[in-house]
Amino acid sequence: MTLGKVVGTVVATQKADGLEGFKLQIVQTVDLSTMAESDTYVVAVDAAGAGEGEYVLCCSGSSARMTESTQERPVDAVIVAIVDSAQVKGKVVYDKAGGRTS
Amino acid sequence: MTLGKVVGTVVATQKADGLEGFKLQIVQTVDLSTMAESDTYVVAVDAAGAGEGEYVLCCSGSSARMTESTQERPVDAVIVAIVDSAQVKGKVVYDKAGGRTS
Amino acid sequence: MTLGKVVGTVVATQKADGLEGFKLQIVQTVDLSTMAESDTYVVAVDAAGAGEGEYVLCCSGSSARMTESTQERPVDAVIVAIVDSAQVKGKVVYDKAGGRTS
Amino acid sequence: MTLGKVVGTVVATQKADGLEGFKLQIVQTVDLSTMAESDTYVVAVDAAGAGEGEYVLCCSGSSARMTESTQERPVDAVIVAIVDSAQVKGKVVYDKAGGRTS
Amino acid sequence: MTLGKVVGTVVATQKADGLEGFKLQIVQTVDLSTMAESDTYVVAVDAAGAGEGEYVLCCSGSSARMTESTQERPVDAVIVAIVDSAQVKGKVVYDKAGGRTS
Repeated sequence: MTLGKVVGTVVATQKADGLEGFKLQIVQTVDLSTMAESDTYVVAVDAAGAGEGEYVLCCSGSSARMTESTQERPVDAVIVAIVDSAQVKGKVVYDKAGGRTS
Repeated sequence: MTLGKVVGTVVATQKADGLEGFKLQIVQTVDLSTMAESDTYVVAVDAAGAGEGEYVLCCSGSSARMTESTQERPVDAVIVAIVDSAQVKGKVVYDKAGGRTS
Repeated sequence: MTLGKVVGTVVATQKADGLEGFKLQIVQTVDLSTMAESDTYVVAVDAAGAGEGEYVLCCSGSSARMTESTQERPVDAVIVAIVDSAQVKGKVVYDKAGGRTS
Repeated sequence: MTLGKVVGTVVATQKADGLEGFKLQIVQTVDLSTMAESDTYVVAVDAAGAGEGEYVLCCSGSSARMTESTQERPVDAVIVAIVDSAQVKGKVVYDKAGGRTS
Repeated sequence: MTLGKVVGTVVATQKADGLEGFKLQIVQTVDLSTMAESDTYVVAVDAAGAGEGEYVLCCSGSSARMTESTQERPVDAVIVAIVDSAQVKGKVVYDKAGGRTS
C-alpha cells in the first residue's frame, strides 16, 4: 500500500456501470520518511470513510477490488485505511492528533 | 484511476480475438494539480462514451476487464468515466462547463 | 495498451512449461505523439501475427492471458493488434500505407 | 520480489474490512548490489514475522494475496521472507549474522 | 517479459508458507538493444533451471504464478526461459554460444 493525502475530488456523471455510487477522491502520494507531498496523484474510491486533508493508505491493482464495496468493480485504486500515526527509524513522522511532526 | 485527456485514436484491423469491436482511444495523462498534459500516453478501450478533447478517468490492469464490454478481453486500460469537474485543495482545477480553470 | 514497434526476436530453448510454441518478439515502446522510439523494450508473445518493423499494440499483466493462445500461460505481455494508422490531435502521426508521417 | 528493509510502522484504526488484524510495516527498498537504501517506501503486511531493521523480500500485486493470512484481503504488498544473506556476482553483499558487508 | 541476467542468490529460512523450496535468484535487468546491465534488480523464483551468469526472461505479476511450480504461491517474478540468442534490428545482440556480441 502507498501513503497518500486526500487533496480533492473528481465529479463524473457519465460512468461505466459498476462505478456508480462511489466517491472519487484525489490522493496525492506522500514520501514516507519526510511526509512531503510528491507530484504523483491517483483517483481512488474510498472504502475507509476518509475526508480531505487526511493521510490514508491506498491499495492498488486487483487487490483494490477486495473491499466489500469494490468487488468486481472497474476500480484499480481504493483507500483502505486512515492513518493515525507513522513512525520511521524510531521517529514519529506523523501523528494525527498533533499533525505532521517531521 | 488516472486522469487523462482523449487526444486521438488508433485504427487496427488485424487484432487478437476478443479485441474486435472496440474503439481504441489515445489518452494522454494529465497532471491532477495543474491539469497540464504529460508525456505519457496509453491506448484505452472506451466504456464511457468519451470523445476527443474530453477529460476522462482510466482504469488499468485486471480491473480494466470489470466493465460490461471488457469482460475476459485482452484489454489492460479502459476509460471508465468522463470528468465533469475536479477540485484540488479547495480550488476548482477543471470544470467541463467552463473548461480548464487552473 | 501501449504502442510499440517490433524490432527483433529472442530465441530460448530451455523454457517453463506453458511457454512452448510461442514466438518471442522484442517490442520497443514508441512515443504516441511523435512516433519516436524510446529506450524501453519488452519481450512479448505474438497473438496478432506481427512482423518485424510493424507498429503494434501490447497488452500487459493478467490481461495478456486473455487471448486464445495465452490462456493460463506464464506470459505478461502480448501483441494484440497491428496498427494501421494513428491520429493525435487531428494529425495523422502514423499511416501504415505511407509509413511514419509526423 | 523486491529487497527491502523494515524501517517503521503505520497505525490505522479506521480501516476497510479485511485489513483488520494486520501489522502494517514500512519497508524501504534497498539496492541489491550495494545494499544502499533508496527513496522508495511501501507499506506492507507482514507474513514472515519480520522486525524493524531486518532485510526482507516483499511480494506485490495479486500475488500478495497468496499467503495464508492475506487471502482475499485488500492488500497489495506483503513481506514474504526475512533475508539471511545475499550474494551478487560472487560477493556476499549481506549476511544477517555479520550485518551489511558491502 | 523482461530480459535479465542471473547475478546472485538470496538465502532466507524464515518465509511465508508457499515460498518453501524455491531457489531465490537475483536478476539484473539488461537493456535489450545494447545488452548493458541496468541498475534494476528483482528477486525471482526459477522455473527454467537457470544458473548464474545466464541471460533469462522474467515474467512478472499474476502471470508469475502460471508455471507448474508457482501455482497459487506468493511469487510475483519467475524466470521462465534461458535465452539462447537475441537479435535486434537485424543484428545479433546476444548469442549464448559466443557470448555478448554487441
